Amino acid sequence: MKIITLTTDFKDLYPASMKAVILNMCEEPTFIDLTHDINQGDILSAAFALYTTTHFFPSGTIHLAVVDPGVGTGRKVIIVRAANQYFVGPDNGLLIPAARRIGDVEVFEIGEKAMLDKISNTFHGRDIFAPAAGLLASGHEAEDIGQPIETFEKLNFGKANASVDKLYGKVLYIDSFGNVITNIPAKMLEDFARPAEKLVVKGNIASYSLTYGRVQKNELLILTGSHGFLEIAINGGNAAQRLDITGHPEIRIEK
Amino acid sequence: MKIITLTTDFKDLYPASMKAVILNMCEEPTFIDLTHDINQGDILSAAFALYTTTHFFPSGTIHLAVVDPGVGTGRKVIIVRAANQYFVGPDNGLLIPAARRIGDVEVFEIGEKAMLDKISNTFHGRDIFAPAAGLLASGHEAEDIGQPIETFEKLNFGKANASVDKLYGKVLYIDSFGNVITNIPAKMLEDFARPAEKLVVKGNIASYSLTYGRVQKNELLILTGSHGFLEIAINGGNAAQRLDITGHPEIRIEK
Amino acid sequence: MKIITLTTDFKDLYPASMKAVILNMCEEPTFIDLTHDINQGDILSAAFALYTTTHFFPSGTIHLAVVDPGVGTGRKVIIVRAANQYFVGPDNGLLIPAARRIGDVEVFEIGEKAMLDKISNTFHGRDIFAPAAGLLASGHEAEDIGQPIETFEKLNFGKANASVDKLYGKVLYIDSFGNVITNIPAKMLEDFARPAEKLVVKGNIASYSLTYGRVQKNELLILTGSHGFLEIAINGGNAAQRLDITGHPEIRIEK
Repeated sequence: MKIITLTTDFKDLYPASMKAVILNMCEEPTFIDLTHDINQGDILSAAFALYTTTHFFPSGTIHLAVVDPGVGTGRKVIIVRAANQYFVGPDNGLLIPAARRIGDVEVFEIGEKAMLDKISNTFHGRDIFAPAAGLLASGHEAEDIGQPIETFEKLNFGKANASVDKLYGKVLYIDSFGNVITNIPAKMLEDFARPAEKLVVKGNIASYSLTYGRVQKNELLILTGSHGFLEIAINGGNAAQRLDITGHPEIRIEK
Repeated sequence: MKIITLTTDFKDLYPASMKAVILNMCEEPTFIDLTHDINQGDILSAAFALYTTTHFFPSGTIHLAVVDPGVGTGRKVIIVRAANQYFVGPDNGLLIPAARRIGDVEVFEIGEKAMLDKISNTFHGRDIFAPAAGLLASGHEAEDIGQPIETFEKLNFGKANASVDKLYGKVLYIDSFGNVITNIPAKMLEDFARPAEKLVVKGNIASYSLTYGRVQKNELLILTGSHGFLEIAINGGNAAQRLDITGHPEIRIEK
Repeated sequence: MKIITLTTDFKDLYPASMKAVILNMCEEPTFIDLTHDINQGDILSAAFALYTTTHFFPSGTIHLAVVDPGVGTGRKVIIVRAANQYFVGPDNGLLIPAARRIGDVEVFEIGEKAMLDKISNTFHGRDIFAPAAGLLASGHEAEDIGQPIETFEKLNFGKANASVDKLYGKVLYIDSFGNVITNIPAKMLEDFARPAEKLVVKGNIASYSLTYGRVQKNELLILTGSHGFLEIAINGGNAAQRLDITGHPEIRIEK
C-alpha cells in the first residue's frame, strides 16, 4: 500500500488530474485529501495544514502539496525526505515546517526525469509534481529523481512572546469552524492564565477554557486547541467572523 | 477490504487526521466520505445523512460519525453494532436511526484501550473515535473494545400527522440542491393527494409531482424523494432558499 | 484494481450512496472524485470537466457522470466505450466530448439488467447509473449490459473564429480560481497576438502572457491555460468575478 496525501488550493477538478497521472505510474495507491480549500496562494496556511497532520501518517507516506503562486517563474521543484516520509512540492517554504516536525530533513531538487513529456506553463501540479510523487510511489528513491541541495526556502511560524499581562503572536490558520489558531504555544498560555480566567482579545472578553463545551453557547473562549497552540473559538459559532480576522495578522491576548 | 465511512461537521483537514490514525492500525482500508458539510453541531441532519445512506453499504462496513457538540463534557463514546455493520461516534443519538434501520442494534461503551496515548480535550474524532474504528477495522470485535450498555441517548425523526386537508411534519434535512426533506412518509403523501394536485406550503402553491422534470423550470413541487419521504423542491432551483427554510422547523402541507 | 471516477452536480452525500452500491458489486474499487461541484444541471461545464481530465486516466477506467436535469423524463441511459475507457451517464451529450477525445467511440443503451430492484423516480445516479458502473467494474462488458445504438445526443464546444483584430468564442468553464476557460484554441491565440501584447476583453485591458506569475499581482491576463484553450485570468485573483462572467456567454477578444 502506497499512501499519497494531497494538499492544494485547487478546490476541485484539478486534484483528479494529479491522481490520474499517479494512477498510471503506481499500483493501487491510497489517496488521502488533506485539503484542497486553502485560500489561493496562502502558503502559510497550507504549511500549517501539513504541519498539523502529516506526522500522524505511517512511515512511507508521500505528501504531495501544491500551493504555488510562483508557478512558471523559475522557482525550484523539490522532494523533502523527513525520516521515512516524503514531501513533493514547490520550493517556497510550504513543506518545511511539517518535514522539520518529523525530523531528519533532506532536500532534493527534482531533475528532468520526473516530468511529463509535455509540460504546461500553468499546471505543474499535474505535469511535474504528480509525476515526481508517482516515481516515489513506484519505488524510486529521492536520490534517483533529484539532486540533494543545501539551499532552499525556509518558512517558520514566527516566535510568540509573553509579558506579565500580554501574549503576542500571530494567526497561523483559520479552520473550517472559524477557530483562530495562533502560533502561541500551549505552555505559554498555561503559564499566563488560570482556567476560567477572563482574557481580552481585540477588545472582546474571552474565558480561558479547557474545551469548547465548558462555556455558554456563543461565548468567546481561548483554549489550547488540538494543534497544541492557543486557539480563539466560539462555542457553536465562528470566532474569525465575530472578530473580523482574515489572513495572518498579529494577535494580542491581554489580561 | 475494510470499508470505513466518515460523517462529520469538520468540512476539511480534520477528516484527514482521522484517516491517518486509522491507516496506522489497519491494512488497506477503503475510506468513503459520506459528508463533512453538516452544519456545525447539527446532530439531526447528520443522523438523517447516516440513516439514508448507510444501509446501502456492504456487510462489515464501519461508519465513523463525529458531530459532537458535547466534546469534552463527559458524554459517552459508543460503538453500535447493527446486523453486521458498525457505527462509532458520540452517545448523542447521532448513530441510532441509521442503526435501527439496519436492525439488531447492540450498543457498547468504549473503554480506555481504544484511545490514543495522548488525548486532546477538543479533537476526540482523531484521538478516540478514529482509534476505535481502527481497532474494529483491524479485526477486533465490539466486545473487545467496549462494554455492552442498555442505556444510551435516543433520537428519532418525530411523527408526522395527517388530517383531511393538512399534513403536519418537520424538516429533517436540506440537501445540497436546496431540496427540503421532511419526516412525512411517502405513503401518507400518496394517500393525501392525487398526482398533479395543487398543494400549499408556507403560502406557496406546489404541484404534487412524481419527479423533478415533470413540472416547469423554477416551479415549486412536492414529491416523494429518493429517501422515501415527502420532499419540497424546485425544478432547477433551491426550495429552501425560496421558502426561507433553515434548520428543522415544523412544516404544514395544505390542500 | 478497478478505477471509477465520479462527476456530478450533487455536492455531497449522494455520491456516497452511489459508491455504496458499487462496493456491493465489485472488489476493491478505487474511487476518484473528479468534481461534485458542477452547477446544478450545467451539462456543458460537466462535459468540459470530463473532457479535460478523463484522457489522463489509465486504460480500463470507468467514468460515472451524472448531471441529469432530465431525470424521470424518459431520456436514455448510456454506456460509452472509448478505446479502453468507459463512460456511464445520461444521454444528454455530457459524455461525448470526453469520449471523442479518447477516440473509437461506441454507444450502448442500458437495458433493464443493470438496475437496482427498486428504482426511485429521482435518484437514477444510485439506482441505475451506479449499478451499471458496478457491472462494468465487476467484469461485464458493455455488450452484456446494453444494446449498441447509433443515435444519441451530441454536444460540442462550438467553433471559435478569428478576424484580423478579433477572436470570437464562448465560455466553456469557470474553474475554482475564477479563471475563465473559452473554446478558443491555443493555436488561434498564438497566431493572433505576440507575448506581452495588450488585448481587450469586455472593455478591460489584458496582457497576453505565458503564465500567471509573469504579470503584476491582480493584473488581468490572457494565456493558453493547461487545458489548451485561451483562458482569462487574474494573477492572484478571480477573473470571472471581476468581469462579471457566469455560465457560458459568447466572448470577444480584441486588439
